[in-house]
Amino acid sequence: MAGDQVVRNTQSTISTCPDPMMHFLLKNSQQKIAKYVYCTPGSPIWGYGVAKVVDSSHPEYKKGDLVWGLTRWEEYSLITNVPETSFIKIHHTDVPLSHYTGLLGMAGKTAYAAVFEVGRPKKGDKVFVSAASGAVGQLVGQFAKLAGCYVVGTAGSKQKVDLLKNKLGFDEAFNYKEENDLEAALKRYFPEGIDIYFEHVGGKLLDAVLVNMKEHGRIAACGMISQYDLAEPEPLKNLFQIMLKRLHIQGFTHRDYDHIVPNYYEFVLPYIRQGKIVYVEDIVEGLENGPAALVGLFTGRNFGKQVVALAPPQKQP
Amino acid sequence: MAGDQVVRNTQSTISTCPDPMMHFLLKNSQQKIAKYVYCTPGSPIWGYGVAKVVDSSHPEYKKGDLVWGLTRWEEYSLITNVPETSFIKIHHTDVPLSHYTGLLGMAGKTAYAAVFEVGRPKKGDKVFVSAASGAVGQLVGQFAKLAGCYVVGTAGSKQKVDLLKNKLGFDEAFNYKEENDLEAALKRYFPEGIDIYFEHVGGKLLDAVLVNMKEHGRIAACGMISQYDLAEPEPLKNLFQIMLKRLHIQGFTHRDYDHIVPNYYEFVLPYIRQGKIVYVEDIVEGLENGPAALVGLFTGRNFGKQVVALAPPQKQP
Repeated sequence: MAGDQVVRNTQSTISTCPDPMMHFLLKNSQQKIAKYVYCTPGSPIWGYGVAKVVDSSHPEYKKGDLVWGLTRWEEYSLITNVPETSFIKIHHTDVPLSHYTGLLGMAGKTAYAAVFEVGRPKKGDKVFVSAASGAVGQLVGQFAKLAGCYVVGTAGSKQKVDLLKNKLGFDEAFNYKEENDLEAALKRYFPEGIDIYFEHVGGKLLDAVLVNMKEHGRIAACGMISQYDLAEPEPLKNLFQIMLKRLHIQGFTHRDYDHIVPNYYEFVLPYIRQGKIVYVEDIVEGLENGPAALVGLFTGRNFGKQVVALAPPQKQP
Repeated sequence: MAGDQVVRNTQSTISTCPDPMMHFLLKNSQQKIAKYVYCTPGSPIWGYGVAKVVDSSHPEYKKGDLVWGLTRWEEYSLITNVPETSFIKIHHTDVPLSHYTGLLGMAGKTAYAAVFEVGRPKKGDKVFVSAASGAVGQLVGQFAKLAGCYVVGTAGSKQKVDLLKNKLGFDEAFNYKEENDLEAALKRYFPEGIDIYFEHVGGKLLDAVLVNMKEHGRIAACGMISQYDLAEPEPLKNLFQIMLKRLHIQGFTHRDYDHIVPNYYEFVLPYIRQGKIVYVEDIVEGLENGPAALVGLFTGRNFGKQVVALAPPQKQP
């Protein structure tokens, strides 16, 4: 089995992380949407996790290596035909390994791409972050603050709003569930309009944002969680704003930005070591609790990046 | 009146050109939409035209200069505070002056920006053009063909579809009014999907396009004519495709691309002189016929770039 490797999932406390997108993919997996079919009904789900190599015939990976990338919801995974780009070796172990399921993994790469590749902020830009306490949103807000922006986030509970304002350093935050008129709420926080919007929600919120964008505003769209679970997508009516305001909208996933990982680590590792980045993880123990944690993402039950610990350190072989 | 100049509108056969956008701006001029208020009720309408300078105290323009840019729907205009960028001197007079209201003016600049700045076509890319027989669309299609693309256009009459296929060199064209299911029509012409879409229409057509875009497709949005005249904009439901296909959408107007005019002329003038660019103009005589021509744009009555000739050559002073 040249090129194959067997990995033990979660030599750290963490291994597989349920992600909102995964739910959408599961639901639609029979339809072969693009190339994102992460699971086959009856087989283990794929997920971004941290693992230790226990056996390998692949020249780039040897026994004992720590890696992060696409593994499966199972204790041991046999990984064949590793694409170089979707399995990344872990070199920095002075930071929690759990970070590689989020802050130093897919979520971090997504947030870095959203801010610096798509948003391209100038100092003083007005930035709005949806799903702001989530895996990506909390980093987007902090990275935009580091770039000198004014940052407002929205989330769905008082606890999350407090987190944004008191722990993550957002300038302002509000609970979208308490706003009857999202357009007016945004006008209140952005009287001069929004320069950059980080889109993880879609639907009504996106429609309200479009009206509040400034000319030449940028929208980095890496998720539309409100739409994944609807039988019919929510209709939007403010698309004309794209033309009127000359907006730039970029849909993307982290997979478009594998090449920026070295730059991202160079940027973020010093901040992590200095304690200047806060990253909230919501860890549940045991694979048996994974499905409930995944479903919880859609009712807002999680608090920060949702992680499932398969093999806590004390149980490591 | 330092910096002022008086221009005689239309020393060529052409002077002021009604444009779809203008109608929208007229309708909404009381609302001060962005900075595009081209008219004040009771005053002459602004429009892109060709004029000869009859008097000037501006250092860059002297008596006899031919110019194109924002003039008014009147025989003589007093232009004050000329912004350097919105008034462009005409140096090439071996091509019809009427072209400066379209092919070598706003429409040409828009089409060039749409194709080469936003669309960035690769040879073999599949390109879809809406409002394809209009001022901008007919050029977008021809420029995309020059870039080696497969080009399909849509328009609203058999006559226009024939023009696209038989005169303008589009690979295929269809009448959107004869299609009950626009999504299926696009699937027929683009079985593998659309790489680049030139958006001048909006509404239902945009919604159908979103579903048919390829991954990493680009949408150059410089008009949404179907929406200008609606009390309520048409709702769209396929926005999720932006994220799923990682689309790049860029709203823009020609005003964002004043700096590319020299490059554009270098590109297009040889093709015009060699007769390799076809440009259809629909010229009505006399300012008194201007309003009807403007309204005609919204019922598809025009055929190519709509122009109003204020002062035919024989009447020039």
